[in-house]
Amino acid sequence: MHDILHKIGAKSSSPQDAFLALTQLEGLGAWWTNDVKRDDAAGKLIRFTFGETGFFVMKVLEQVPGKRVEWQVMNGPEDWIGTRISFDISQADDYTLVMFRHSGWSEPSESMHHCSTKWAMFLMSLKSLLETGQGSPHPKDVSIDNWN
Amino acid sequence: MHDILHKIGAKSSSPQDAFLALTQLEGLGAWWTNDVKRDDAAGKLIRFTFGETGFFVMKVLEQVPGKRVEWQVMNGPEDWIGTRISFDISQADDYTLVMFRHSGWSEPSESMHHCSTKWAMFLMSLKSLLETGQGSPHPKDVSIDNWN
Repeated sequence: MHDILHKIGAKSSSPQDAFLALTQLEGLGAWWTNDVKRDDAAGKLIRFTFGETGFFVMKVLEQVPGKRVEWQVMNGPEDWIGTRISFDISQADDYTLVMFRHSGWSEPSESMHHCSTKWAMFLMSLKSLLETGQGSPHPKDVSIDNWN
Repeated sequence: MHDILHKIGAKSSSPQDAFLALTQLEGLGAWWTNDVKRDDAAGKLIRFTFGETGFFVMKVLEQVPGKRVEWQVMNGPEDWIGTRISFDISQADDYTLVMFRHSGWSEPSESMHHCSTKWAMFLMSLKSLLETGQGSPHPKDVSIDNWN
């Protein structure tokens, strides 16, 4: 199994603000994709849509305020299904840190290469959101290659 | 062992231009760090310096024009020594693609998380260099967290 790892630090933010940006629809919509909604009555499933390119349905496995969020991919591209995505939040002096892990990829495919760089750009969008109030969610996301 | 993977695509560039940016001192200095020099008479060792933060000495293992570059880290931070960094170049329609792999990390440490995101930003700097002639090498690199 192969994992994608990343780390960002937002200056003059807080673990609570990072947690809200990772758990509230408004927050998620401000850095990852503007098309995000609950997919079940219990609020455990979240659907993230990226125009006609695709979508992901995440099951919320864990939410510890100010500390940690973990999802499991329930639906979406075949190589994403069953993988897990976690965000570990901490504070170091003036920086709110987010350690990111997307684990359980079955092979180091071109898709995994693409998604790793794309995650970096979205996490930089989260950093910008926390620092300035303005992120770059889809469809305003940064293009990295021929797949967008 | 753990690997960092990334992919970028530069529009209206060429595999030959990407290869030069990965092998010539002038090219390397325009996207990774402005302080780069040969470290031996044979030209097989390249030293990349990042101000007082640190440095890496790479041994060139492979250089196939327009196709592939591979380095092994000979000196630098302890967790980098012995790891390998490769760039596989290809063309897809109007995009020159670079598949990046930094392999052989002994553990998924905070340093590895940081370096993965930092590599993404430097590869975006390479993309920008190939597309516009202007990259963002150290010391003009993008800050991602409390370690820079």
